[in-house]
Amino acid sequence: MKNILVGQSGGPTAVINSSLYGVIKQGFLYRDEHIEHVYGMVNGIEGFIRGDYLDMEKEFSTETLEQLKTTPAAYLGSCRYKLPDSLDDIVYSKLFARLNQMNIGYVLYIGGNDSMDTVSKLSRYGSRINSPIRFIGVPKTIDNDLTLTDHTPGFGSAAKYVASTVREIAIDASIYNTKSVTIVEIMGRHAGWLTGASALARQFEGDNPVLIYLPETDFDENTFIKQIEKAFETKKNLVVCVSEGIHDSDQKFICEYGNSIGTDNFGHKMLAGCGKYLENLLRSKLGIKVRSVELNVTQRSCTAQISMTDLNEAIEAGSYAVISALHGHTGEMVAFRRISESPYKVVCTLQNVDDICNQEKTVPIQWISENHADVTEEFITYTRPLIQGNVTVPVKDGLPAFVYRK
Amino acid sequence: MKNILVGQSGGPTAVINSSLYGVIKQGFLYRDEHIEHVYGMVNGIEGFIRGDYLDMEKEFSTETLEQLKTTPAAYLGSCRYKLPDSLDDIVYSKLFARLNQMNIGYVLYIGGNDSMDTVSKLSRYGSRINSPIRFIGVPKTIDNDLTLTDHTPGFGSAAKYVASTVREIAIDASIYNTKSVTIVEIMGRHAGWLTGASALARQFEGDNPVLIYLPETDFDENTFIKQIEKAFETKKNLVVCVSEGIHDSDQKFICEYGNSIGTDNFGHKMLAGCGKYLENLLRSKLGIKVRSVELNVTQRSCTAQISMTDLNEAIEAGSYAVISALHGHTGEMVAFRRISESPYKVVCTLQNVDDICNQEKTVPIQWISENHADVTEEFITYTRPLIQGNVTVPVKDGLPAFVYRK
Repeated sequence: MKNILVGQSGGPTAVINSSLYGVIKQGFLYRDEHIEHVYGMVNGIEGFIRGDYLDMEKEFSTETLEQLKTTPAAYLGSCRYKLPDSLDDIVYSKLFARLNQMNIGYVLYIGGNDSMDTVSKLSRYGSRINSPIRFIGVPKTIDNDLTLTDHTPGFGSAAKYVASTVREIAIDASIYNTKSVTIVEIMGRHAGWLTGASALARQFEGDNPVLIYLPETDFDENTFIKQIEKAFETKKNLVVCVSEGIHDSDQKFICEYGNSIGTDNFGHKMLAGCGKYLENLLRSKLGIKVRSVELNVTQRSCTAQISMTDLNEAIEAGSYAVISALHGHTGEMVAFRRISESPYKVVCTLQNVDDICNQEKTVPIQWISENHADVTEEFITYTRPLIQGNVTVPVKDGLPAFVYRK
Repeated sequence: MKNILVGQSGGPTAVINSSLYGVIKQGFLYRDEHIEHVYGMVNGIEGFIRGDYLDMEKEFSTETLEQLKTTPAAYLGSCRYKLPDSLDDIVYSKLFARLNQMNIGYVLYIGGNDSMDTVSKLSRYGSRINSPIRFIGVPKTIDNDLTLTDHTPGFGSAAKYVASTVREIAIDASIYNTKSVTIVEIMGRHAGWLTGASALARQFEGDNPVLIYLPETDFDENTFIKQIEKAFETKKNLVVCVSEGIHDSDQKFICEYGNSIGTDNFGHKMLAGCGKYLENLLRSKLGIKVRSVELNVTQRSCTAQISMTDLNEAIEAGSYAVISALHGHTGEMVAFRRISESPYKVVCTLQNVDDICNQEKTVPIQWISENHADVTEEFITYTRPLIQGNVTVPVKDGLPAFVYRK
């Protein structure tokens, strides 16, 4: 009889707790046979190093465990802690001493590429000292930038949020009989998956968003203005979606151009995004009505647009991680393989975390249109299945009810 | 047999089309008896002056008419057009000539206090020339700032959006083990109803948002910083909600302090909201992690958080306007009277538009807490019934399906 230890790390998603739910449920299934306790690290590996953890059985009732599935952010708390590169660092022996003392047999770590670095290091240290403890990574990130997996849990719900919100913004932007541009800034510093998902917002040919710019290509202001002017030839109200990470050919972020000048009363830089900068650029160059909307953290925390497909896959990834660890796997991450496009079907597999950690999967250049201002049908075909299915979130007093740590 | 003419004006809401639906449905009910056609002005009175209108029967199928109920923004298009103050202006005689030529008997105008100014002028001109045409206003505004009505359609859904989104932002903000402030900027230039609704986000005593600032009171930066420091004594991650229209005791908007300095590469002012300004202020004064989120247009266009109560009342307001006009009323606006608090129950009444137009109803000072950084229980008791009930929006391909003008 061993214990399970699960942690969450990096930025949250709408379904990172669904994966936690999957781990807990699967762990409880094996209780009294292979598993005694399921523990959760508080604030990831950083908190665990401090000795901060919780017993999942004491933490949840049957009802609150079900609520966990649709509670956003990271229930256990998160961290952005990088373990030392040298496996000789004292932190590893301390960590393994604690793991052994707690009779941990299986460690599941839910996170993105930085978190997979943690899994990689722990499993490498483990094999160096011949530890029987198994380490498995559970993928999550709205950025969809993990390699060796078809996609990541968290992306589908964020994509659904982006697409539905851009559709709502587009219809809102179309009500006045005057020319206008609405710029929507979407998360994604290096990978444009989420911004590309805004293409799903279109209800008919020629519908907004008319222009979509990803960080995979260089952004040129003059080309941008020409593309806006051209779009105005056939449409009065334009919606333009941009990744926060768009940059020029010198690899300088567009948002930095705004920041380099704006200072507040204290002489401090007013940090503003590229959407705000481009709003200003268009207004001054074209003299038209422009506004910008930064979708911000709601992209990763909105529960009203959780994709059922994403939720179920996030749970499955958590369960599969437990089963894999119990089967003796270590140093691997749960990955999705798409075995059928129509009907859409994925299966879970395992991939070596060493090949995943610290890598970024960007949108393939052949999925970006030739004018670098849209995505192709292939991108849409890839993304559409991931946003399917609506989820009913438990409601109390007219609002979504979430479970929280006391 | 007369015709109905309906228009939409001012900023949109998530349920302004529900009121349009109510007008059309009620108009169709009387068809072949009192009513021949239901026409819609395109882009409000401004478009109608240009001769732009649509026949609602040709516009909708049974299916698309039902979709209209949950389609955000203004289906007919909107305007921000103010009719001339002098009723001697030639525009009035032209307008009435067109109304007579189209055999219009009843004009319903869906809008806020500026739009009620249009209803007031048209009905006053009508009675001056003894026109039999009836003019009725249908209230709408997310700002909830119309006088002589318990509340306005559009507010409930926006309040539900604000409360649920702030709850999600709060839980997102709590995952790291470091001190942080998240500032949420909410719409409302002069009235703090919507910002106050963020208080509903709290799930337990002491929950976020810990501080709420409305434009009904003066905002003082030093007091603000002291209140933040005090809140940190018991809580690590703070969420603060501010109205976009908060101002100091000189009545200068806080957002103007940021704008007065920031300029971009072109020497143009970088317009930023008060949230961005306060983010910067706190970061420089306290040296902590601060971010700001501007909820922006999604407050009025998000369909995922439409309140069933709001939707039904918006439809009812539209129906009641038609019935009132057919009964000979003119120069009046549909208003809600709350006849019971528990269970919550409102009835429709009529109020003179002359007493409503160009007025603003702000949050009563006794509903703001003594420290001017929260709302009272009375505010919450007033607001909570308005956000009750969830609405299922028709879905196609994983996204909300909206009806749009071809």
